[in-house]
Amino acid sequence: MDRFSVLFHVNEPEKWPVVLLNAMNFLKDVGQGEAEVEVVANGGAVSVYGRAAGAGQGNDQLLERMQDLSGLGVKFAACRNALNMHDIDEGSLPPFVTTVPAGITEIVKKQALGYAYIKP
Amino acid sequence: MDRFSVLFHVNEPEKWPVVLLNAMNFLKDVGQGEAEVEVVANGGAVSVYGRAAGAGQGNDQLLERMQDLSGLGVKFAACRNALNMHDIDEGSLPPFVTTVPAGITEIVKKQALGYAYIKP
Amino acid sequence: MDRFSVLFHVNEPEKWPVVLLNAMNFLKDVGQGEAEVEVVANGGAVSVYGRAAGAGQGNDQLLERMQDLSGLGVKFAACRNALNMHDIDEGSLPPFVTTVPAGITEIVKKQALGYAYIKP
Repeated sequence: MDRFSVLFHVNEPEKWPVVLLNAMNFLKDVGQGEAEVEVVANGGAVSVYGRAAGAGQGNDQLLERMQDLSGLGVKFAACRNALNMHDIDEGSLPPFVTTVPAGITEIVKKQALGYAYIKP
Repeated sequence: MDRFSVLFHVNEPEKWPVVLLNAMNFLKDVGQGEAEVEVVANGGAVSVYGRAAGAGQGNDQLLERMQDLSGLGVKFAACRNALNMHDIDEGSLPPFVTTVPAGITEIVKKQALGYAYIKP
Repeated sequence: MDRFSVLFHVNEPEKWPVVLLNAMNFLKDVGQGEAEVEVVANGGAVSVYGRAAGAGQGNDQLLERMQDLSGLGVKFAACRNALNMHDIDEGSLPPFVTTVPAGITEIVKKQALGYAYIKP
């Protein structure tokens, strides 16, 4: 295997801390340049993307950790269906978040490309 | 990739609504004829299959949504071990549900055939 | 497919009973010699490995069931990051548990080798 490719799936807001911890520990273990890592959020998990910095409740810390991981090459995706269900405007998302039409399709496509699937 | 192949795994009854929503959104996104979709239920999740229509508690609505998805080509499987543990008679299952000897084996076989695995 | 290869991921202590039940039912279904089965624990799930026999709360029974599965060829791995976070000394682990540097890396490597991923 040349490089690792990993997709983390998060659909519950309370799972974000463990997802971000897992992704960071993984990158520390294999080395930053050795892996493609993508986090796909759908369901209620997209709400964390949509909370403005300063919303408190530990949210600032989560967004900071995402920003750090983004700087290390980790990609963050949001499911548009979920954004719509939660009345989150795409324009309000942090700049490191990409919107995909359907989170499940993104997950399926990445697995077809050889990404490992992890659901913390 | 010619067609998408996706397996949804559900083992907790309360996860049925999100599984069915995910499956429907996925089909709307890729187009009905473009994907093989199977839902495998084991553990306590099989109880939802076994509740007679009219049992209330939102169960009718879940079974209706399964029926709709079945009409769109989605397959539904039940783990026989789980049915036995929950005293559910196979004969009482909706006609669109297929029983498999062991849910985990079904999941493993489908992944070996290239199905993406999703655990909502 | 010659043999089945399956990886079970457990990161919450309360999920151990279902993981062990799933693994046993799977082995009964396909036959003991027909599958490679590995259970990778990270997060809080490693705490169950670390509790001494006799700690009660059903823990003895879980460790006994792991021991039985180990006798049937099932491998058990613990994430070192998680052990450190939970102040668990590697020397205190049951003899059938192998420590890996990072649980996520182990899961990714095994999927790259063709193991099915299951998150009960």
